[in-house]
Amino acid sequence: MEETPTTRRQVNIRRLFEPESVAILGASEDRTKAGGRPIAYLSEAGFGGRVYPINPRHAELFGYRCYPSLAALPEVPDLIVVAIPGGGVVQARRYAAAARVGAMVIYTSGFAELSAEGAAAEREIRDICARTGLLVCGPNCQGVANLFNGLAVNFSTALSQGHPKPGPVAIVSQSGLVGALVTAECMARPLGIGYLVSTGNEAGFEFADAVAYLADDARIRVIAGYLEGIRDVDRFRQAAERARRNGKPLVILKAGKSPDAARVAASHTGSLAGPTRLYDALCAELGIVSVDSIEELLDVTVACARVVPAPRGQRGAIMGNSGGFAVLCTDDLHRFGLPLAQLAPATIATLARYLPPYVTAQNPVDLVGVAMNDATATTTVLESLLADDGVDMVLCCFGAVQRNVTELCNALVAVVRGSTKPVLLAWLASAPAGAAILEAGNVALFADPSRAVRAMKCLVDVRTRPAWAQAVPRLEPAVLERMRTPLRAAIVRGQATLGEAAVLPLLAEAGLRVPRLARVASPEQAEAAFRAFGGPVAVKIDCDDIAHKTEIGGVRLNIASADACARACREVLDNAARHAPQARPRGVVLAEMIGEGVEVIIGVQRDPVLGPFVAVGLGGILVEVMQDLVLHSAPVDRAGAQAMLRRLRAFPLLEGVRGGKPRDIAALADAIAIVSEIAVCVPDIVEMDLNPVIVRGEGDGVVVVDALVRLRNDSDPVDRAC
Amino acid sequence: MEETPTTRRQVNIRRLFEPESVAILGASEDRTKAGGRPIAYLSEAGFGGRVYPINPRHAELFGYRCYPSLAALPEVPDLIVVAIPGGGVVQARRYAAAARVGAMVIYTSGFAELSAEGAAAEREIRDICARTGLLVCGPNCQGVANLFNGLAVNFSTALSQGHPKPGPVAIVSQSGLVGALVTAECMARPLGIGYLVSTGNEAGFEFADAVAYLADDARIRVIAGYLEGIRDVDRFRQAAERARRNGKPLVILKAGKSPDAARVAASHTGSLAGPTRLYDALCAELGIVSVDSIEELLDVTVACARVVPAPRGQRGAIMGNSGGFAVLCTDDLHRFGLPLAQLAPATIATLARYLPPYVTAQNPVDLVGVAMNDATATTTVLESLLADDGVDMVLCCFGAVQRNVTELCNALVAVVRGSTKPVLLAWLASAPAGAAILEAGNVALFADPSRAVRAMKCLVDVRTRPAWAQAVPRLEPAVLERMRTPLRAAIVRGQATLGEAAVLPLLAEAGLRVPRLARVASPEQAEAAFRAFGGPVAVKIDCDDIAHKTEIGGVRLNIASADACARACREVLDNAARHAPQARPRGVVLAEMIGEGVEVIIGVQRDPVLGPFVAVGLGGILVEVMQDLVLHSAPVDRAGAQAMLRRLRAFPLLEGVRGGKPRDIAALADAIAIVSEIAVCVPDIVEMDLNPVIVRGEGDGVVVVDALVRLRNDSDPVDRAC
Repeated sequence: MEETPTTRRQVNIRRLFEPESVAILGASEDRTKAGGRPIAYLSEAGFGGRVYPINPRHAELFGYRCYPSLAALPEVPDLIVVAIPGGGVVQARRYAAAARVGAMVIYTSGFAELSAEGAAAEREIRDICARTGLLVCGPNCQGVANLFNGLAVNFSTALSQGHPKPGPVAIVSQSGLVGALVTAECMARPLGIGYLVSTGNEAGFEFADAVAYLADDARIRVIAGYLEGIRDVDRFRQAAERARRNGKPLVILKAGKSPDAARVAASHTGSLAGPTRLYDALCAELGIVSVDSIEELLDVTVACARVVPAPRGQRGAIMGNSGGFAVLCTDDLHRFGLPLAQLAPATIATLARYLPPYVTAQNPVDLVGVAMNDATATTTVLESLLADDGVDMVLCCFGAVQRNVTELCNALVAVVRGSTKPVLLAWLASAPAGAAILEAGNVALFADPSRAVRAMKCLVDVRTRPAWAQAVPRLEPAVLERMRTPLRAAIVRGQATLGEAAVLPLLAEAGLRVPRLARVASPEQAEAAFRAFGGPVAVKIDCDDIAHKTEIGGVRLNIASADACARACREVLDNAARHAPQARPRGVVLAEMIGEGVEVIIGVQRDPVLGPFVAVGLGGILVEVMQDLVLHSAPVDRAGAQAMLRRLRAFPLLEGVRGGKPRDIAALADAIAIVSEIAVCVPDIVEMDLNPVIVRGEGDGVVVVDALVRLRNDSDPVDRAC
Repeated sequence: MEETPTTRRQVNIRRLFEPESVAILGASEDRTKAGGRPIAYLSEAGFGGRVYPINPRHAELFGYRCYPSLAALPEVPDLIVVAIPGGGVVQARRYAAAARVGAMVIYTSGFAELSAEGAAAEREIRDICARTGLLVCGPNCQGVANLFNGLAVNFSTALSQGHPKPGPVAIVSQSGLVGALVTAECMARPLGIGYLVSTGNEAGFEFADAVAYLADDARIRVIAGYLEGIRDVDRFRQAAERARRNGKPLVILKAGKSPDAARVAASHTGSLAGPTRLYDALCAELGIVSVDSIEELLDVTVACARVVPAPRGQRGAIMGNSGGFAVLCTDDLHRFGLPLAQLAPATIATLARYLPPYVTAQNPVDLVGVAMNDATATTTVLESLLADDGVDMVLCCFGAVQRNVTELCNALVAVVRGSTKPVLLAWLASAPAGAAILEAGNVALFADPSRAVRAMKCLVDVRTRPAWAQAVPRLEPAVLERMRTPLRAAIVRGQATLGEAAVLPLLAEAGLRVPRLARVASPEQAEAAFRAFGGPVAVKIDCDDIAHKTEIGGVRLNIASADACARACREVLDNAARHAPQARPRGVVLAEMIGEGVEVIIGVQRDPVLGPFVAVGLGGILVEVMQDLVLHSAPVDRAGAQAMLRRLRAFPLLEGVRGGKPRDIAALADAIAIVSEIAVCVPDIVEMDLNPVIVRGEGDGVVVVDALVRLRNDSDPVDRAC
């Protein structure tokens, strides 16, 4: 295979995480400085490769021989760590590109996050990477650590508290401090860390690249991410899919979900944060576990790292040393949508043998004093719950147990270790000795039962996350061409929007059903055109500048005579002149009346970062007032569109409730799929509303009655090509 | 004032919490037993009153002289603590009632939670209390502790870890263990506890009694409650109102919110858990802070106990040592509905002086390395935020700060202490020394920023909780009598439901507008009746057994001729015979057509524990599919009803959106108020649906078009009288 920048880049990702030689530019003898810390860390973590501190003023640093310059090194290193100010970075980058260094980690800040000159320097790094395949992590990052081989070129203070045990957690963060906090909290539990990656400004190596690499490491059980912005949605999608395929939960705390926060993120690491709802839709599609706080990120990470067997279903059993726990945990299961397991008679019989007579043997199990007094009885109860085919996972809740803690914890560790079903523990007001035994025994331990149940829910979600399959557009090139040409022409004419008279024919090209239309310029023409219809028509103002025709009195429905048609035409023109004086109507449109049906909106929303999405919602009121709208990245196939419809809260209206008849859901799903293909293949459409779409009875199809397109203009960001 | 059981009970509540003498029945020398623990606790806590252990086999226990029996005591004690099995409880109870003992704390279990005999014994205790004014805490409880005077007759293990410092937190729990856990966690922070009350089976002293008593203690700042079931909703309401009036947040974790959990609660402390939605509505009315987990209960309790100044508004400022924190906390403010404060130019100028040039001076404040390196600069930034009139409260977020921790924490404590605005702190991966300084300095400290923001939201909610005022029903007795009589007659006839023909005239009595009606038995009568209307009518089946007439084809609308009326009458009778063969229609009803309007449902729901509620929702679809329904305990006045309407997500439809006209919201609010009065004053109505109610344009009123009542029957629980 020919070597290209892309194939070299792939090789160089490995050279970043598993270099045979590392040079540190700006090496310092001061371990509190960014240029000293990584050398100290490499030395302490026992990195097996060759380490070259670059500093003309020292002969040796932390036991490694120093070199005066990169040029003086005995070999071209796999990795250069840059801890020097901006000017030196340029030289280092030139050397790296020329000498075919594999990767660089650039700590240095002062790039896109600071100034226009910084942004220009960052663009230059980006270009060199693209041209040569050099891999650059940063600038303005804390670097990477691979704890398996001792490659700790990350200057985070978290690593200065003693090196973490290598283990199943991989951390990828766009904020140095948040990554450090997750690391510190994992170390405190203690939970082994495999990788800590801080990506900074992501000039040449981004969040998704790190996830994709870590997803291939068999020693990693969970990837915990802190994300402010996605750079390349396709890379992100592929990385998430890789993690899913390899059975590794990808847990992400996404910051910048509020309008204000997005503004902050933009000035923070130069990231662009895409709109929240689109991001959420994308996460759901990709099976990403989306969390809302640092604590939840930690909880879910702990659960995934500790709980090795995946739940086979979602039925939970609860045992605790208080009736209060029993009730609270049952509430929590309910709140997170997990069913309470129904116990088999044999299990209930076992429980009855070990519980006092005044406690009902049931799920949730109230152990009362048993846990405090009898470790064997407690673990026997746990084992009987785990042996029950109706139970998929167990939550044990203890509070204020002070007696027999060591015995009980050791017994619990033994049962959890042998279990093929997940067991989670919540222990409140715990004796520290107990927590230490449980955590050393790799038990997933939580300080609050609600947080444990939240983690159980994530384990279930991870297990059921769907494979993602890119739908392949099926619209023919000729059809697409016939759609694209008039849109392009409208853009050239300087138009910002297109109304129904222009858009409906294009939708018809793509195979969507639309009403018969006639465009007329005057009441007289309207009268004549009416006669050709032979039935009642709708009369609507024909104007690309009026987005909501009804509101200005621009629509008359059910016009049943030629006379009335002329009159209606006059009225809507008058209303437009009065209420939208700046608009330039072309005339009026006569449209065949479609008759009864459930009204739906199908929409397209194109995000400059996340790409095109298709949306569906029911009826005007439901979408506008109740915000009952479901989004999916485009394209989506028929099955995906049906799944979207089922997620609408108002879906029962399509199925037929209260004597209403079932609607043509299959045809509606097809229409959504077609619109989603248009969204992908016609990038000149920035937004589109098909509203209303009339969904008729089963077998009678759907008809798009009105439509509006917002066209790309020169100020819109350039979109990826179709 | 004459002494009654009720006035004696009031005095005896004080004798429970501030007794001058305490006898312990079943006194033990073993401090791990329930009969030994309280004596040890009283001794250790320095209780100033007289203590009488009752045990014939000992001369002295824990330094107190023992007595062989209650009869042998030198005085009648204010309080008897009962730690002996069931048989002895009966004797002690008799002694207490006869000798006019003030209060008893009964630890003993085996009452209503165990068996029918136990329930009978518990009823007997209840009766004695009601008859004599004796106050009984328990049975099946862990007892009470008043840490201010050393009265620690609570056998919770939480108190065995060293006695808590007396302080601002009062804990009331229907679960002994949950109360103990909250105690233990407060002690760990450390946060002073004033009272710990475990109410157990609540035979004579319930959750609300404890709250009402504690609400009057000026040393208490917050009441933290764990609740499984409300016994007497009026007492609960009054207690909550007392807490509000005295400026004490009442924070409640309510268990038994899921159907399964409610079942568990019923068998746990014999409590009945009222339906969740009604409970939530009640909490909102009463300004109770409702939390979802033990952790949240603790967080909010800590915030209320530590943060002395109440926020004057809801605008938050954020400062933290990471841009990540800035973005995350801004997201959290947004998630909890708190606005990000806009800083004044002077504040921004101050920030700019202390922040590095590459950080934008704005809210949220990214301190980068400043916090680590310069405590004075950090607190100056905090002070400038607090001085800004646009800022109501500040959240400081630090992570992984390891240097200058002592200096920084001391400086922060000084600023927080002097502040008239709330300051909350979140500190992740903190040095324990720092946490100790902050907590000793009474700073509200959280382990996660999201939890701190959640607590900020509660502080705002507590500040804005409304006064509760019982609305006074204004329906006249004669009107009520005319409503009650036919309902009573229907119950006597054995009817379970009443339909529109029976109910609409009663609603008209109460002043609600209903259509003109005519009841007819045959198509011929229908034809004749139609002529009296002089306009189009609706024809509906007249049958109390058919709840949803439309679904069986029992309704024909807009019938415009006598002929058509006879035909419609025949059709609906045929449809009823075919689709509801078991129903016994009386004939058909002709009703005046009401014309266009927004359709609303007004409902009544009577809960055996929580009492009557009124409900309102918009339109069939919105209520049924979107569950857009707002509840309020009955009665509600016009202003309250208007507030209910504004909480409907679909409220914009009443205001008039997208060219729709504004509706008669005032008339609708009046109708809700009237229905709520009916709910209170006509207890034979267990459920009522007015559906639809047509809301016409402003000034044109509302018309109740259809109605259905479910009547009380003999199996329904007896309700409190009106």
